[in-house]
Amino acid sequence: MSYFDAASAAPLHPVARQALLASVDEGWADPARLYREGRRARMLLDAAREAAAEAVGCRPDELVFTPSGTRAVHSGIEGALAGRRRVGRHLIVSAVEHSSVLHSAEEFEADGGTVTRVPVSRSGVAGTQAYGAALRPDTALACLQSANHEVGTVQPVAEVAGVCRAAGVPLLVDAAQSLGWGPVEGDWSLLTASAHKWGGPSGVGLLVVRKGVRFAPQGPVDERESGRAAGFENIPAIVAAAASLRAVRAEAAEEAARLRELTERIRARVPQLVPDVEVVGDPVRRLPGIVTFSCLYVDGETVLHELDRAGFSVSSGSSCTSSTLTPSHVLKAMGVLSEGNVRVSLPPGTPAEEVDRFLSVLPGVVAAVREKLGAPAPRTAAHEDALVVDALGKRCPIPVIELAKVIGDVPVGGTVRVLSDDEAARLDIPAWCEMRGQRYVGEEPAEQGSAYLVRRLS
Amino acid sequence: MSYFDAASAAPLHPVARQALLASVDEGWADPARLYREGRRARMLLDAAREAAAEAVGCRPDELVFTPSGTRAVHSGIEGALAGRRRVGRHLIVSAVEHSSVLHSAEEFEADGGTVTRVPVSRSGVAGTQAYGAALRPDTALACLQSANHEVGTVQPVAEVAGVCRAAGVPLLVDAAQSLGWGPVEGDWSLLTASAHKWGGPSGVGLLVVRKGVRFAPQGPVDERESGRAAGFENIPAIVAAAASLRAVRAEAAEEAARLRELTERIRARVPQLVPDVEVVGDPVRRLPGIVTFSCLYVDGETVLHELDRAGFSVSSGSSCTSSTLTPSHVLKAMGVLSEGNVRVSLPPGTPAEEVDRFLSVLPGVVAAVREKLGAPAPRTAAHEDALVVDALGKRCPIPVIELAKVIGDVPVGGTVRVLSDDEAARLDIPAWCEMRGQRYVGEEPAEQGSAYLVRRLS
Repeated sequence: MSYFDAASAAPLHPVARQALLASVDEGWADPARLYREGRRARMLLDAAREAAAEAVGCRPDELVFTPSGTRAVHSGIEGALAGRRRVGRHLIVSAVEHSSVLHSAEEFEADGGTVTRVPVSRSGVAGTQAYGAALRPDTALACLQSANHEVGTVQPVAEVAGVCRAAGVPLLVDAAQSLGWGPVEGDWSLLTASAHKWGGPSGVGLLVVRKGVRFAPQGPVDERESGRAAGFENIPAIVAAAASLRAVRAEAAEEAARLRELTERIRARVPQLVPDVEVVGDPVRRLPGIVTFSCLYVDGETVLHELDRAGFSVSSGSSCTSSTLTPSHVLKAMGVLSEGNVRVSLPPGTPAEEVDRFLSVLPGVVAAVREKLGAPAPRTAAHEDALVVDALGKRCPIPVIELAKVIGDVPVGGTVRVLSDDEAARLDIPAWCEMRGQRYVGEEPAEQGSAYLVRRLS
Repeated sequence: MSYFDAASAAPLHPVARQALLASVDEGWADPARLYREGRRARMLLDAAREAAAEAVGCRPDELVFTPSGTRAVHSGIEGALAGRRRVGRHLIVSAVEHSSVLHSAEEFEADGGTVTRVPVSRSGVAGTQAYGAALRPDTALACLQSANHEVGTVQPVAEVAGVCRAAGVPLLVDAAQSLGWGPVEGDWSLLTASAHKWGGPSGVGLLVVRKGVRFAPQGPVDERESGRAAGFENIPAIVAAAASLRAVRAEAAEEAARLRELTERIRARVPQLVPDVEVVGDPVRRLPGIVTFSCLYVDGETVLHELDRAGFSVSSGSSCTSSTLTPSHVLKAMGVLSEGNVRVSLPPGTPAEEVDRFLSVLPGVVAAVREKLGAPAPRTAAHEDALVVDALGKRCPIPVIELAKVIGDVPVGGTVRVLSDDEAARLDIPAWCEMRGQRYVGEEPAEQGSAYLVRRLS
């Protein structure tokens, strides 16, 4: 078995396992108590806080432990927004943030706040200029991830932090995907992270609030963790989180170079081995272990199942309709193909042979899925001067497959009109045009669903 | 070392330790994923939910895991209040609930809600009649603990649930102290609990919401745990929590009888061994492992230190001024003595010899603390017809010690006027009068602090 989904959750690092076992017997007592078991728990907690703060590059009293990265994001955003309520009720996020950030933003909107979602480039980069343009006198907070969780693109955090600092606006950095690789550069104000992303245990997030940043914790009062993270501290897990962060950092430079070579191999080889593939994400400014690509005419869920049967655990941001796959807002914001999407995120220590085996298995898997889907022919009919493809009731990736089949039947300059009631078509037909060098003319309402117009250019 | 503070946090049960170790290697992946590591994590999570639900006596789909008991209480109360917002904005709690419940109530008040705090008897029981009287047409929720965390008094939950049910009001039961001993009886609507109280690991709480109870989770949307507990699931800890709950339940009947005998020994012997002691909490309807008493003329923090030095870890709800001890709202609500308060809460498995050693050590510890505090004599002066004790600037338990010294100096029917600026005097002087059979006349403002009037009756 090859587990290639470290961006969801990394397997427990051996150091985390060791530290967890050791502190389960030492750190179970209430650290607020004065007796020796309590004092011992307090010492473990203090030492873990110091180690984590050193890895982040902050003061220990700026860092609290939360029950998860998601809770760190929720508490961090709501606390920062409440702390600057008098300044205004405007929030800036990038369009490709983690769902915990976007859901916090939606919650804020529901409560009467205003949110600007900064768009990203086709490679997933949120521009510094775009952040600068989004800043307003009533902006209470800006949020930007250190690197994207789906495509691995590294964001210009230091530059955006500088622009925000100049405007007097705090920047919250969601460092969930990058903290294991190194500290976040730049003059940020708040930072969040999640231990199970770097090989630490579940149940531990970090929330850092720099001194001087206005912060008003929300929810019922609780004296634990400086009033910023309610509930009894999970000290064994916190100790394991801090110990493993230190351990992965010690191995980071060497391991990053090694994984970067492996993901570069995937980036380069997949388009050679598999026809009609788009590798997405920034080719240069990217995390070492993540590579993401989309396969035309492929259904994301089926490809995951087939890869799982072949011994590979990967994830997908495919927008193909399915109860189990979430359409990716990241791929949508980047304007890239989302059908047949595969994210490979290698955990530290992945052997090169596993990657090579993946590359040998992938072409057959994709070909088999395509063959299975390629069978049914569409009803086509002339419609005014355009060839009409009726793909109503057909789900992704069928509409695009049918489009591809008939594009050769119209003359160059001619138009194909694809009727579809599948939401994914809205994303995938323009992406197909971009990949194939055809012109996407636009969408118009149809009797049922929508009509997508494509002009043949070549 | 004897650890007698199980009501704060119980040492990890051996079964919890085993289950944690086993599932740390099996349950780290994302249970929402389709590949085998994800499916394995999902199976562990589902099995743990079924085991926990069976122990609670609910359906698995009524139970979610939260990051702590405190978070379960916060989410449970705010979700239930929001779900019944249209009914009204009135909340009922008992005066002796855990701080997580009381802080939720304060938050609700700050947001415009109304809270009724039901008083308790001198033994700490919140009466069914009092709950019935507190119910209003706009009552959205009532909360009652299954048993008190400081004095061990078991509450009439089934009766109160019946009264609430008849009025159509859901009852939330905080079962943190009792769930390890058995399911909560009665027709309650919501239930919360905390794994580290029964010997499970830190980082796991339970929130049960019965089918049909209106519930609207608050905070940013998150799909995990039926939308009721945001953040990545801590599956190894959840597995350990469920396994240890089952294990402690299997041992509960036998262990309860054994601990009840030990705490009964403390209840009976302490007043014989130590003069001027009040044992508090219900003598019959009480948890097996908790016994609480207060020692006149003793400072709570000092007695904890001395007991710690003698090898005993206990806690105190003493209201003596200290940066490290929180004055107990429970003792205050019961109207019992809070000075020199000691809570002994025995973890399952406590050997009888440790209790006997505690009983042999305690009298000397209390006597030494009293001797140390007994030294300084107060300035006394005649004031109208009363003897005035000037205890200004003196901290608990000095004002009561000074009062006791001079009460014999006034004739029966005469009055002592104690001047004090220590908050604890307000609680402890009336309690002393009750214990000594003297009449507490009342409090009046003085030039500095307050004057407490005591009439000698005997």
